[in-house]
Amino acid sequence: MARMTKRRRVSRRYAAGPARERVDVLAGEEPLEIRIHGESLAVMMRTPGDDFDLVAGLLLAEGIITRHSQIAAMDYRSAIGADGQRDYNVVDVALTDGALPPAESTHRHIYTSSSCGICGTSSLEGVRKEPAFDVVADDAATPLDHLLELPDRLRADQSLFGRTGGAHAAGLFVPTAAGQRPELVCLREDVGRHNAVDKVVGWALRGELLPPRGAVLQVSGRASFELVQKAAMAGIPTLSAVSAPSALAVELGDELGLTVIGFNRGQHLNIYCHPHRVAEGS
Amino acid sequence: MARMTKRRRVSRRYAAGPARERVDVLAGEEPLEIRIHGESLAVMMRTPGDDFDLVAGLLLAEGIITRHSQIAAMDYRSAIGADGQRDYNVVDVALTDGALPPAESTHRHIYTSSSCGICGTSSLEGVRKEPAFDVVADDAATPLDHLLELPDRLRADQSLFGRTGGAHAAGLFVPTAAGQRPELVCLREDVGRHNAVDKVVGWALRGELLPPRGAVLQVSGRASFELVQKAAMAGIPTLSAVSAPSALAVELGDELGLTVIGFNRGQHLNIYCHPHRVAEGS
Repeated sequence: MARMTKRRRVSRRYAAGPARERVDVLAGEEPLEIRIHGESLAVMMRTPGDDFDLVAGLLLAEGIITRHSQIAAMDYRSAIGADGQRDYNVVDVALTDGALPPAESTHRHIYTSSSCGICGTSSLEGVRKEPAFDVVADDAATPLDHLLELPDRLRADQSLFGRTGGAHAAGLFVPTAAGQRPELVCLREDVGRHNAVDKVVGWALRGELLPPRGAVLQVSGRASFELVQKAAMAGIPTLSAVSAPSALAVELGDELGLTVIGFNRGQHLNIYCHPHRVAEGS
Repeated sequence: MARMTKRRRVSRRYAAGPARERVDVLAGEEPLEIRIHGESLAVMMRTPGDDFDLVAGLLLAEGIITRHSQIAAMDYRSAIGADGQRDYNVVDVALTDGALPPAESTHRHIYTSSSCGICGTSSLEGVRKEPAFDVVADDAATPLDHLLELPDRLRADQSLFGRTGGAHAAGLFVPTAAGQRPELVCLREDVGRHNAVDKVVGWALRGELLPPRGAVLQVSGRASFELVQKAAMAGIPTLSAVSAPSALAVELGDELGLTVIGFNRGQHLNIYCHPHRVAEGS
């Protein structure tokens, strides 16, 4: 059965002192197969939970859909495990006529793992995707003081990380009234940092909240090319990471008009491109 | 051109005090396409450098080859960029008759990113691979004190991380004389933690060093299912991670006979399975 965490007996050894046997809580990691109209589209490792959000977010990130209405149905219908029970590691998707899965003949299978983002690409030309939303016109600024609070606000709600010490998180913060702190409307955790983002984006897509004007996507780790691409595909204008961005992440953000923030450590942060979305003060 | 790092002007903002403009060094991240006999096998994001090791390690991890001699040739021969210059983001591989790329008809394309490991799998059954080496018989133990030193020894040589703050590392430590510390024979860094492991394993494969008896693979981050799988495919008996393993990583290590160590923080570490490879003292 698909579970978010599992308990495991471990032996803790110390530089000095006796070994201690204890029970540790580990983050769940299981393969998820996505089938579209019965055809296998992707197999990915993920932490079970919010699977439909994950699938919706991945379909958006891959450019297969741009609206929730293009998903006609999504369920665990087809798969029965060896024990005769339903298999919650296979999600079946039916798309409407307007959205079509990549054709067999285009070599555009998607094979993905706990942190893929360029999957579905069989040559270098296919790495960059055309976002459905344009973030350039979204020039709402977030006060610096509010941005500096985001990592701590994310961390405070990371229950899976709190229990396991081994899960990434992504959170979507949206503007409220002028002068008020942005609101954390969705936080998701996963062993794969890209999955956490797909789950957040998929949640927003299914709630018809895309593009989320003035929003900030805060992530617990680094900002890779693929995370910038996922934010762009969702129309999120600002990506803020606790750790470093890659060179290509910054180049893509610069090109697409996204504000890329890195090393957001509470007392300071770095702005790598499009700094006009960071307002002084609070 | 493919570069390991890039410089970029950034604006650092502080909770209190004026903004400072500075130049930041970012880890390079570029797509690499792997072609086998002219056919595209995979596109992955990676930090340029040690590309041939990366490709060799990935081919081993995917079960396409088990020995270096199965690679007849590997070069940047085929691709010329738009500027008429050689494109160092495309590696061409020729295999010997004994090794064959996945056939088109088997749906076994590989699409991979900066941290894929189960790529090349089009259904759940294909996620687990059969290692070419059996680590069970390799029961050499490493003293606890030596294991506790590995994260610091790895960190001391992480030059890319030192410059960018944004790169993962993997290091292969092999036994020397009895009572002596294991030797760090190969360290590789990459924006993708799975790439760092592929580069180390590919280096060892090309040097005909697999399976490395009594060796420890030390990684800078977490231990996922895919990292345990890569260690197993290379015949490395012990995987040590600075951070948490996932539940499935431990299950796979348990099943295949690998020792999985997590939360190796210098003063203590956790052993999740097969503790007989950890000796007391030094």
